[in-house]
Amino acid sequence: MDDVIAYLREHRQEHLEWAREVCRIPSVSTGPEHQDDVRAAIEWAHDLCARIGLKAEVHETGGQPLVFAEHREEPGAPTILVYGHMDVQPEGDLELWDADPFEPVVKDGWLICRGAADDKGSALAHVRAVAAWLAVEKRLPVNVKFLLEGEEEIGSQNLGKFIEEHQDLLACDQVLISDTGMYEDGWPTITCGTRGAMLKEVRLTGPKHDLHSGTFGGTVANPANVLAKVIAGLHDADGRVTIPGFYDDVAELSDDERRRFRSLPLDEAQYAIDLGSPRVCGETGYTTNERRWVRPTLDLNGIYGGFTGAGTNTIIPAAAGAKVSMRLVPNQDGEKIGREFDEAIRALCPDTVRLEIVTHGHADPYTSPADSPAMRAAQRALREAFGRDCALIREGGSLPILPLFKRVLGADCLLIGLASPHCNAHGPNEKVNLADLDRGAEAIARLLAYLGHTA
Amino acid sequence: MDDVIAYLREHRQEHLEWAREVCRIPSVSTGPEHQDDVRAAIEWAHDLCARIGLKAEVHETGGQPLVFAEHREEPGAPTILVYGHMDVQPEGDLELWDADPFEPVVKDGWLICRGAADDKGSALAHVRAVAAWLAVEKRLPVNVKFLLEGEEEIGSQNLGKFIEEHQDLLACDQVLISDTGMYEDGWPTITCGTRGAMLKEVRLTGPKHDLHSGTFGGTVANPANVLAKVIAGLHDADGRVTIPGFYDDVAELSDDERRRFRSLPLDEAQYAIDLGSPRVCGETGYTTNERRWVRPTLDLNGIYGGFTGAGTNTIIPAAAGAKVSMRLVPNQDGEKIGREFDEAIRALCPDTVRLEIVTHGHADPYTSPADSPAMRAAQRALREAFGRDCALIREGGSLPILPLFKRVLGADCLLIGLASPHCNAHGPNEKVNLADLDRGAEAIARLLAYLGHTA
Repeated sequence: MDDVIAYLREHRQEHLEWAREVCRIPSVSTGPEHQDDVRAAIEWAHDLCARIGLKAEVHETGGQPLVFAEHREEPGAPTILVYGHMDVQPEGDLELWDADPFEPVVKDGWLICRGAADDKGSALAHVRAVAAWLAVEKRLPVNVKFLLEGEEEIGSQNLGKFIEEHQDLLACDQVLISDTGMYEDGWPTITCGTRGAMLKEVRLTGPKHDLHSGTFGGTVANPANVLAKVIAGLHDADGRVTIPGFYDDVAELSDDERRRFRSLPLDEAQYAIDLGSPRVCGETGYTTNERRWVRPTLDLNGIYGGFTGAGTNTIIPAAAGAKVSMRLVPNQDGEKIGREFDEAIRALCPDTVRLEIVTHGHADPYTSPADSPAMRAAQRALREAFGRDCALIREGGSLPILPLFKRVLGADCLLIGLASPHCNAHGPNEKVNLADLDRGAEAIARLLAYLGHTA
Repeated sequence: MDDVIAYLREHRQEHLEWAREVCRIPSVSTGPEHQDDVRAAIEWAHDLCARIGLKAEVHETGGQPLVFAEHREEPGAPTILVYGHMDVQPEGDLELWDADPFEPVVKDGWLICRGAADDKGSALAHVRAVAAWLAVEKRLPVNVKFLLEGEEEIGSQNLGKFIEEHQDLLACDQVLISDTGMYEDGWPTITCGTRGAMLKEVRLTGPKHDLHSGTFGGTVANPANVLAKVIAGLHDADGRVTIPGFYDDVAELSDDERRRFRSLPLDEAQYAIDLGSPRVCGETGYTTNERRWVRPTLDLNGIYGGFTGAGTNTIIPAAAGAKVSMRLVPNQDGEKIGREFDEAIRALCPDTVRLEIVTHGHADPYTSPADSPAMRAAQRALREAFGRDCALIREGGSLPILPLFKRVLGADCLLIGLASPHCNAHGPNEKVNLADLDRGAEAIARLLAYLGHTA
């Protein structure tokens, strides 16, 4: 093990060059302009995997290709599947960047460019660890498979089908992912679960076209006013969702988790300042971390209706609508919540307007087993590499691939965050701390060993 | 009088030609494209007034010019000011028109084109009556002044200043306007009052930019959800506005008016079908006519916030807002209602978001004296010309010029509607019934005589 760690330290400059190389490829997957660049990034990842000694192959998916690479020569050892992605978000407003987003800059120990953190830099930490083992020991403590895709930023459109159709190829005992963040700078972090989501749209229609609010105001229902009434009826004064049955299946936090979450420092005043809100607020009886990680929510993502330009246009709108995202937690069932939402809206909506409810999709919540051998191994590896106990947190957003891996491959996911909470993923001047990546690669090298022993 | 009526009947074809001529001028005032055409329509009106024997002059206002024309040669007789406008709304979607909106078509007794009803055709009925008197009698029973503007469809932006600055020129005993509608086809109608308006916009801001609804949902206030709560709080279950003080100054209907309004036929099921709403609804305890004419209301004209495109974008919006029009009735004070609205919104809005309230303007309500000599003269003239008693109604919309004439010139307004309720003003295939215009011109010719006698 010491030799593997030494190798990583000796080759850190070479490994940094890998990150710079792939970050120079503008593999933006969200628009048509960079489709070839996404493919180039996948091919670059293929070549790297092959170079370090993995059996690597580019697979077509119907959309962007993906790389599958493996080392399956350790009979009896467990098999680890590393998931990551080589596509990135658009660069956005270039004015907000200090330099070219696709010309990586190293400054004060940070690598600054699009993809540095999300997810090229983070995913490469795993490749580095495997490369070090193969270079030093000519073997691995475990069997390793890499699945690096090119469509994560557009919802992994073709990944589900690929996984369903390649279950034998992808079969594994544990999934490893570094596409989440750290709780604080330099604090190694395991994300133990994510919330699910149920996306709805409520559309109300009244008059067949916009009406003059003077000539007709007061005689027929105004869909925008009715919408406000309906939406307002979805929360009570304690910030709780009023949909009947909404909380029935919510798993309450264990005392242990509650204690652990409350032990994590959080300056709520600073949190509100960082977001720009006057103050934190939410469901009565829960802390901010509990509210964002383990409590279900209902938020409007958008509301629309009538005249919204500058000035005035005194109409009764013909229609109004709202886009709604509910975040779900274990053990809520998305489809059941969806039905309950529909029923609640129907009960709240008067017969003075016409109601349409659209379902835009849903994702299941996910939790990693709290005390598995893999979880213990990861905590040990991170502690040794970073010199401190890792933070065990959750994520309020949804990662549909986690329940997908669980359902199709039967494997749980270990989410090891290497990105700073200030990495500005998706924003300008995205960055990653190089020391965190170095320690992350060392932690993963250790983790592979411990996972081998805990087979 | 008989000779004047006979003259009108003999010259109806020539007078129809006037309407066709001016309707061919695309005097759309709402955009920059037709500014010269608006001026051309004003100049056309000037030339017509001069041709029939009035002293006519085009006045510059800073915006579009207007025509002032007068016959002031009847000492001792009262002075009547006729107001109308020569500008029109845009033609809108040409696909929805059966013919060129600016190439007048006569079909089945209707003149079909933009401006036929609103207001070129209607305003010309007054010119025709005056022309007939001058042609037959070489005099008028009253002094007459015409004020025909070119900015009505853009809110009469420069009219107020012109009236203020030309009080002597415009001095009169009575204002006559035909820019309203009939209660039913062929039923002569006097509109005895209009509602006022107070226009507000409520803007709530929360986070400094849109937030991920998963990562942050549940921890800070969502401005769109808060907005729904605030707006919902403005009405109670009986459809009444909850703003403290809102109804304090509302003039209750007299028994006579209530009886009169309730005697007007209104098929509420058909009314809802015509508008496209599932059913009528409004403030408990009032009929549809009472709700639209003499009860104050509060309607959202628009609501906005967050993502409103196709599909989903799971954000917590940084901001949300609503545009509000309140319709006011005698004796509500717009500025007082505005203050009460602001206070109610502040009381409803929690400190978890930032609140801004913008006032976009207001108009006072107006009522004509119920039983004045002019009102009686108009009822008689309309009865004789149309062969039936006229309907006495109100209008739910606002006409800011009415309280303006009252305040600056001290004169009341008589609103004689000649446009069919199906005239589709502002919409495609705008039309006016030519028999209604003919009878309207006769009624106005009679009215001038009766106003002369009632001096």
